[in-house]
Amino acid sequence: MAQQHLDRLTAIDASFLAQEGPASHMHIGGVVLCEGPAPRFEEILDHIRSRLHLVPRYRQRLAEPPLEAGRPLWVDDPTFNLEYHVRQTALPAPGTEDQLWRLVGRLMSQQLDRSKPLWEMWIVEGLERGGFALLSKTHHSLIDGISGVDLATVMFDVTPVPAEVPHPDEPWRPHREPTPVDLVAGGAIGLAKAAAAGVAGVLGAIARPQSALRAATEAAEGVGEVVWAGLNPAPATPLNVEIGPHRRYTVVRNSLADFKLIKNAFGGTVNDVVLTVVSGALRAWLHGRGVRTEGVELRALVPVSTRGNHEANTLGNRIAAMRAPLPVYIDDPVARLRAVKLAMDGLKESKQAVGAEVLTGVQGFAPPTILAQASRLNFSTRLFNLIVTNVPGPQLPLYVRGREMTDVFPVAFLPKNHALAVAIMSYNGQMNFGLLGDYDALSDLEDFAEGIRTSLAELVALARSRTSPPRAAGEANGASANGASARRGAGARG
Amino acid sequence: MAQQHLDRLTAIDASFLAQEGPASHMHIGGVVLCEGPAPRFEEILDHIRSRLHLVPRYRQRLAEPPLEAGRPLWVDDPTFNLEYHVRQTALPAPGTEDQLWRLVGRLMSQQLDRSKPLWEMWIVEGLERGGFALLSKTHHSLIDGISGVDLATVMFDVTPVPAEVPHPDEPWRPHREPTPVDLVAGGAIGLAKAAAAGVAGVLGAIARPQSALRAATEAAEGVGEVVWAGLNPAPATPLNVEIGPHRRYTVVRNSLADFKLIKNAFGGTVNDVVLTVVSGALRAWLHGRGVRTEGVELRALVPVSTRGNHEANTLGNRIAAMRAPLPVYIDDPVARLRAVKLAMDGLKESKQAVGAEVLTGVQGFAPPTILAQASRLNFSTRLFNLIVTNVPGPQLPLYVRGREMTDVFPVAFLPKNHALAVAIMSYNGQMNFGLLGDYDALSDLEDFAEGIRTSLAELVALARSRTSPPRAAGEANGASANGASARRGAGARG
Repeated sequence: MAQQHLDRLTAIDASFLAQEGPASHMHIGGVVLCEGPAPRFEEILDHIRSRLHLVPRYRQRLAEPPLEAGRPLWVDDPTFNLEYHVRQTALPAPGTEDQLWRLVGRLMSQQLDRSKPLWEMWIVEGLERGGFALLSKTHHSLIDGISGVDLATVMFDVTPVPAEVPHPDEPWRPHREPTPVDLVAGGAIGLAKAAAAGVAGVLGAIARPQSALRAATEAAEGVGEVVWAGLNPAPATPLNVEIGPHRRYTVVRNSLADFKLIKNAFGGTVNDVVLTVVSGALRAWLHGRGVRTEGVELRALVPVSTRGNHEANTLGNRIAAMRAPLPVYIDDPVARLRAVKLAMDGLKESKQAVGAEVLTGVQGFAPPTILAQASRLNFSTRLFNLIVTNVPGPQLPLYVRGREMTDVFPVAFLPKNHALAVAIMSYNGQMNFGLLGDYDALSDLEDFAEGIRTSLAELVALARSRTSPPRAAGEANGASANGASARRGAGARG
Repeated sequence: MAQQHLDRLTAIDASFLAQEGPASHMHIGGVVLCEGPAPRFEEILDHIRSRLHLVPRYRQRLAEPPLEAGRPLWVDDPTFNLEYHVRQTALPAPGTEDQLWRLVGRLMSQQLDRSKPLWEMWIVEGLERGGFALLSKTHHSLIDGISGVDLATVMFDVTPVPAEVPHPDEPWRPHREPTPVDLVAGGAIGLAKAAAAGVAGVLGAIARPQSALRAATEAAEGVGEVVWAGLNPAPATPLNVEIGPHRRYTVVRNSLADFKLIKNAFGGTVNDVVLTVVSGALRAWLHGRGVRTEGVELRALVPVSTRGNHEANTLGNRIAAMRAPLPVYIDDPVARLRAVKLAMDGLKESKQAVGAEVLTGVQGFAPPTILAQASRLNFSTRLFNLIVTNVPGPQLPLYVRGREMTDVFPVAFLPKNHALAVAIMSYNGQMNFGLLGDYDALSDLEDFAEGIRTSLAELVALARSRTSPPRAAGEANGASANGASARRGAGARG
């Protein structure tokens, strides 16, 4: 579905705006490290300028119709200024990664300005390791969950030589600013479009947005196949406290091969191993705070995508919330993995497989798009303790202006009363964690990061010491000692 | 007046909070350039830590009483974290001053977090010129206009060797968080204090904050001695449009001696020359936008301080708004200066002289304090086109951790519907302009800066070509060709 001037926001996109508060930002991001030398700032600007016509939403801002006549619309921003959105900064000396994460935390702490297109891209120089970093920061509502195309998708190339992108015949000129009549009439256009696409439910959404939103939420939860009787609130923990606007961010680098080594040794999926490692880290973190974990099972909200009845490019993708168990009461790592696997196996295999397929099939490199799908859920629920989102990325190197992208780290978001979020993304043999915490509530975010490392290392050591051969010959080479074996091509996820 | 836990905000300080909106920030700042090498970040933190007890407000946050029982109070922040407030960043290569001003614009665009002490201090590295920069960003309401002490005051030394500041006997420990009863009782304490100080008006302010505020505003305007019949709104110009939250910042470096050269050649005060130069720059800027200036006189709001009936350390300082003329209709620079002088002479000499004395007498180096006084006015008025604030600073070098402060630039603020503000500060022979503009409305802020340079250069050339000797022998050495002659000691202002 093309992104057009006067498109009306979907009910769910509009709900992202409504759910956003001064302390619960609804933007997400990704940090990409690239080889040097850093392109000149003007070169980056020109590169983005040459591809911006592929993502029209990035030059559109919100327009509120008068008299509350429906949801906001996307309209061309007549004062669009690329240099406002693309920003250049640097780390102070010596330029360590800790300094980079501190910067990322700060930049994610500021709400996007609603009067402009809802995105920023930061070019960060002064890295001790050389090269440069790119931080993308994009509002949920901007990212078209349908077409799955965002700025990061169009900025990166699969070859060192940038692809020639055909230019439009004419330079971009914004449509004239809409009149109040346009803003109301736009609603009618939206209705007509929706009807043409055969999506009858949207009609109801316009007439009764609240009830439609509720129905959409319920439908999403239905697809989510919550199989354990978990409709009581998630346990009270230090994770679920009032949060402020400020964020901390840190990362853990891992090898995808290590996760495969573990699943091959003990069974389960890569995602089961992720949840087991997160459980182990949470267990240690809670103990460090003097919180007892006997009998406590926390719950992760794990966004998954399931194919609906429609094809892609219509309203085909459905997002569901899986409420995955985090058995922090189990000390033994292998027993913890088995408990996770047992609970997850209770979910219908068929639906999950379809979801994984859709996620893997997302074209190109689109972490914001996939992360955005995580928010197609109702975050006002108190049914989960934290978001754990696991995004498969491309298993081949990508380039920007000929510089190889060496590392990718996703940045999730914190719904109200949720002080920690874990995002994981694989890329070219890596399986990196991006940890986002409330600045005050998670002052010990590094302790949690250390828990991730320790918990994974325990499982890797146990898997290595196990003498049984890997289950399938085709997967035997997936394990590596140092995680450096980059697997080319889209690696299958368990 | 000491800054204490459970102090209630004054009516005027509370009005700064009320007047602040998403697009009209009520924080001000100063940029200081220092010689290198930059101290280690930890050294800066320790330095601030060692002097923070001198400015207790900097560890206090706002607390709202329940049931709207009066104005907010200042309370110790039990989660105070110096590293949140003091931040380290760097410019991207090559680290030009333009890049620094872009950073300042960005940092001033973000509202301070009301849940924490209302200030930030940024250490900026990576300057092409060497050394480092300090940006202070402080909310109006934080700065105690009474005692006139702020963090910048206590951070800088008058000698290269940092002064030994006596430490308190015990390390700082926050008072316990106030209960709702404390927050209401605090009001009673505030009342008692105010009564003890003999400030009966404050009693009424608590009972009827709106009417008290109005009375305070009227009193300030009365003191301001608005002598020309200027109670009709200021002319409509591109300066007075709806503004957004984003800012541009740039500076113009000048020599105080050049301003004295001009006043000695043609009469008037340094401040008259400032207003003449600003008028010339506005004239050129308006012409550049195709706006005609025939018959147009713009109006600057010029904050001045006048000594009241009370001594300092009580509520002694009164701030008044002078609405100074900016005769943009006059092309000839000398005629423009004469028109400014004529209008300004209409203001009572006595009051102005007292105001200047109070301003000059402010202890040490306190640009935020003085700038804050500018906001002790009602900015909802449409009676002026822009703020022009001229702050005399010390005429001797200052040091931070032994590094000489080489340049100072003040950063003002933009009230609603005011897209440009001009702040001027003198320091050690310099007379630097800091120009703050709305990001979108003043996209041509550099053109205005160029107009300042051109307008001043015109007057300097005319003053030099004038053959008549300076009026007073004692002032004859005040003029310099390049502005490099640093005058030591507090230079008298015209």
